[in-house]
Amino acid sequence: MRIGILGYGNLGRGIECAIKQNPDMELVAVFTRRKPDTVNILTEGVPVYSIDDILNYKDDIDVLILCGGSATDLPEQTPEYAKYFNVIDSFDTHARIPEHFENVDKTAKESNHTAIISSGWDPGMFSLNRLYANAILPQGNDYTFWGKGVSQGHSDAIRRVEGVKDGKQYTIPMEDALEAVRSGSNPELTTRQKHLRECFVVAEEGADLAKIEETIKNMPNYFADYNTVVHFISEEELKANHSGIPHGGFVFRTGVTGWNGEHKHVIEYSLKLDSNPEFTASVIVAYARAVYRLSNEGVYGCKTVFDIAPAYLSSVDGAELRAHLL
Amino acid sequence: MRIGILGYGNLGRGIECAIKQNPDMELVAVFTRRKPDTVNILTEGVPVYSIDDILNYKDDIDVLILCGGSATDLPEQTPEYAKYFNVIDSFDTHARIPEHFENVDKTAKESNHTAIISSGWDPGMFSLNRLYANAILPQGNDYTFWGKGVSQGHSDAIRRVEGVKDGKQYTIPMEDALEAVRSGSNPELTTRQKHLRECFVVAEEGADLAKIEETIKNMPNYFADYNTVVHFISEEELKANHSGIPHGGFVFRTGVTGWNGEHKHVIEYSLKLDSNPEFTASVIVAYARAVYRLSNEGVYGCKTVFDIAPAYLSSVDGAELRAHLL
Repeated sequence: MRIGILGYGNLGRGIECAIKQNPDMELVAVFTRRKPDTVNILTEGVPVYSIDDILNYKDDIDVLILCGGSATDLPEQTPEYAKYFNVIDSFDTHARIPEHFENVDKTAKESNHTAIISSGWDPGMFSLNRLYANAILPQGNDYTFWGKGVSQGHSDAIRRVEGVKDGKQYTIPMEDALEAVRSGSNPELTTRQKHLRECFVVAEEGADLAKIEETIKNMPNYFADYNTVVHFISEEELKANHSGIPHGGFVFRTGVTGWNGEHKHVIEYSLKLDSNPEFTASVIVAYARAVYRLSNEGVYGCKTVFDIAPAYLSSVDGAELRAHLL
Repeated sequence: MRIGILGYGNLGRGIECAIKQNPDMELVAVFTRRKPDTVNILTEGVPVYSIDDILNYKDDIDVLILCGGSATDLPEQTPEYAKYFNVIDSFDTHARIPEHFENVDKTAKESNHTAIISSGWDPGMFSLNRLYANAILPQGNDYTFWGKGVSQGHSDAIRRVEGVKDGKQYTIPMEDALEAVRSGSNPELTTRQKHLRECFVVAEEGADLAKIEETIKNMPNYFADYNTVVHFISEEELKANHSGIPHGGFVFRTGVTGWNGEHKHVIEYSLKLDSNPEFTASVIVAYARAVYRLSNEGVYGCKTVFDIAPAYLSSVDGAELRAHLL
């Protein structure tokens, strides 16, 4: 399976690392908007090309993995490159998924290509767990918690505050909310009860710390609805202790069965990830295998994780899966 | 979707309850090896027929759900009834799944029927989680823990001990083993380190309690490899506090990503179930929906949970799933 990577940031590098773990896959090339000779990749002997030349390689690549951002890159790139390649992305703007799906489905079908959008862990593995659990327990409640982990959007928001030089924000699920859900008591939880936001901030010299803290805590959408803790630390400390990109979270469904709903059940799925982009990449690479297989079967158009039979993700054949994992 | 149930024990009754929660399904009939007029079911107006008459109803049933045992019933019944019906079972003798699959696949394909075997939670949801997690993290370790819950096999073993009138056995995962796995330290765990076995025993009058305890604790296969705790209680206490059939468990995969495996990840799936048979039934009923749809699409033969795209389990259509659950 010959893989191309478009975009070489944290996610692209994660894809490269994941390909190394999958012997049935081969990295053919990395494509970039930067000058190719400024991009150093990890895999020896694999070329870096300009995105402008990508169509020259359309017969050399079985699946093109799109590693751009959801805000502006993927809405353009995925439908466009689905004209020439089998593609997969991790588009994660939940509200715009239906529109993105339609756009990709159209160009992929017109050109007989296979596409998967929104793979990763949320959307992705978390969505799958919501779907399975909803199908099993129709009478119940869903809960999703995120963290402990770094929110890029909230970290960016901190860095836009006047007097802030740098900063990192951790989203932390509240332990007592998790326990209440686990108990099966079906609690109604407010935004504030579910997550805490912890900020590590490097201030500019002479900045008004009290004002920075107040501005962060009252920022609408990002922080105002949460309990927020702000720590001021040095640039060195930020670099030493907060340069990782961990994340994770929990998906629960609690529900009842029995003739009168007399029995309670709790389904819990959780992830604890040292590296958000590398784990996301690992999910994408498994689904890239499905893209390849579906394409070989002549199944074209846009798919999501909901449409993919689990066996398509594994390099192991059906008989061996049944013998060892079932 | 018109459902028939074959076998009306705890699982069959669980299926009946689950059908009530799914408005797109209708229970058509229950078939039994007992005298039909001795079997009282919960759903008003639904007939109970003798298994001997089941072929009279083959055009009235879209999916026949087989609720017999894995030891002797299902190896016979599933391949046999797949000649006349679309079928689903919860065959759970892991070592014999490949053979069972082949037998069912043959008769189902010959007669253009669709079958799913080994649905439920283990095999079933636990298997799925093993497969997904293995595909995502190829470099890692799997851990499965069961409980806290009632093991029917171990409870039966206790009841066969001389001097024992009744008994119930709980399988309990060891908290420190769970924590060691959650930490991502990839521990090597012995059988004894993973699970504790707790027994509640009602002794016959005048029985030698010390001897009963010793016999249980040293029973090969069942107890000898575990730390086992034996409590002697009264018949009333057993009935009052230990008549439920709870179960559950944990599936973990811990693994690494990164160019040099420098980042650790923990994937955890867990179930906490008040009623083992009712939850199993709820999974089966969701997969019965997939059997029905695949049959309508002309996809015949035997399948397992590995072969079923998740969307087939849901009564909600693709566009709505993408908009709300992805």
